Amino acid sequence: MTRRELFEQIKKKQSYLCVGLDTDPAKIPEHLLKEEDPVFAFNKQIIDATKEYAVAYKPNTAFYEARGAQGWESLRKTLEYIPNDIFTIADAKRGDIGNTSALYARAFFEQMDFDSVTVAPYMGEDSVKPFLTFEGKWVILLAATSNPGSFDFQHLELGEAKRPLYEEVLRKSQEWGSEEQLMFVVGATRADLISKIRHAAPNSFFLVPGVGAQGGSLEEVSKYGMNDHCGLLVNSSRGIIYAGEGEDFAEKAHDAARVLQEEMKKYLGLYL
Amino acid sequence: MTRRELFEQIKKKQSYLCVGLDTDPAKIPEHLLKEEDPVFAFNKQIIDATKEYAVAYKPNTAFYEARGAQGWESLRKTLEYIPNDIFTIADAKRGDIGNTSALYARAFFEQMDFDSVTVAPYMGEDSVKPFLTFEGKWVILLAATSNPGSFDFQHLELGEAKRPLYEEVLRKSQEWGSEEQLMFVVGATRADLISKIRHAAPNSFFLVPGVGAQGGSLEEVSKYGMNDHCGLLVNSSRGIIYAGEGEDFAEKAHDAARVLQEEMKKYLGLYL
Repeated sequence: MTRRELFEQIKKKQSYLCVGLDTDPAKIPEHLLKEEDPVFAFNKQIIDATKEYAVAYKPNTAFYEARGAQGWESLRKTLEYIPNDIFTIADAKRGDIGNTSALYARAFFEQMDFDSVTVAPYMGEDSVKPFLTFEGKWVILLAATSNPGSFDFQHLELGEAKRPLYEEVLRKSQEWGSEEQLMFVVGATRADLISKIRHAAPNSFFLVPGVGAQGGSLEEVSKYGMNDHCGLLVNSSRGIIYAGEGEDFAEKAHDAARVLQEEMKKYLGLYL
Repeated sequence: MTRRELFEQIKKKQSYLCVGLDTDPAKIPEHLLKEEDPVFAFNKQIIDATKEYAVAYKPNTAFYEARGAQGWESLRKTLEYIPNDIFTIADAKRGDIGNTSALYARAFFEQMDFDSVTVAPYMGEDSVKPFLTFEGKWVILLAATSNPGSFDFQHLELGEAKRPLYEEVLRKSQEWGSEEQLMFVVGATRADLISKIRHAAPNSFFLVPGVGAQGGSLEEVSKYGMNDHCGLLVNSSRGIIYAGEGEDFAEKAHDAARVLQEEMKKYLGLYL
């Protein structure tokens, strides 16, 4: 999917909502456990219930890998079930030496057909570039994450310029790929940070994981993070997929997604 | 496996060789392609041929993931086939927010039964700690890798102390886990670097991936990297598993592993 197509979807749905499909078998409503593949059955209903509001779906691969080959199969079926005009993100946080990263790229872009994959920057250019060679596919590079440990290394200041590591990642990686193929993971916990990061990468899309269960204000993210292509995909996982616990979980997910979409519609009017 | 048990194996076999099971279906000898699972059939013969010299096996998960659920199954069977007294490393380079890292840990330590998994440090403490809660299991944290991109971020100098990022990773992570549960990935390309890193983590085991196809001298690594528990696992992948291309590939792998083991035996005598 191109940047223009993604932006078209955002305008059409008046939403920049990404739904995180972090499906934990232990949290699936009981009535689905008799299904052949309860995880897929759950995801299917979540997708049906939220697709009018979501412009992206993001399964975190850990939730599937934890179930081995069987989980991998649930992931494949889930991906196939997502409508083609919705952006798909394999939240895999991969990264290895060049020829090995190329294999991961094949796993997510060819073996499966994700639009994008999240990649860790620690190993540098040759670990990221193989993901950038696929036409129409995207890398979403970890820049500033929203977890407590993000302060251990990402915010340390480098050299005489005292530039934090996450900013060096933003700066250097934009030489490797354009805003048509490279997005960034940007934690949503602080307005001043979002503002600084938007300055360092004015044209890029940001995947913002920190709204909802991880804390972070949608208003501040939108106010300080939006650019002229919207430039934001704001993720909610638990707040949507576990909004309900019973047989009406999909309805509850639908309602939770609509609440976020209505707020997003307002900010698109105000800040785009 | 404990540090003491690993050291016992090293002394018994007079070897600190790790064999990288980076099995590429395109490079498997033709006569194995008729097998039901050619990757497993290949690995089985490699393991049989090298187990007298290897103290560790390290499958890089990318090679298995690239084949989806089927590849995951080959990985599981390979792991089960490795003798129990040989240390096993899932070279997965994972790392995510706390509760998600916990799922990856379960995938590699419970769903499968690896002794260790390689982890990326960029997301900090809560991304690493969940892997450290399993009795007898190890984290092998990326510190200084040997690929060209390692210079993009790992060697940048931080703050007034001008300490490189990889050293900050070594320093900080040793507060999270002891040398009985935490090893480091240390690229083997420069003697002065190995020496500096050994100084920063005197008691830890280092997984050294850069000998053989990736360049790097076994003698220098051994001379500057060895400690009183040996403290080294030196990996060779392509140099062993693709030493031959025909029906005698396992024999060729055996010979290549023996050449390395004989050199290691010499260094154990000189430097331990």
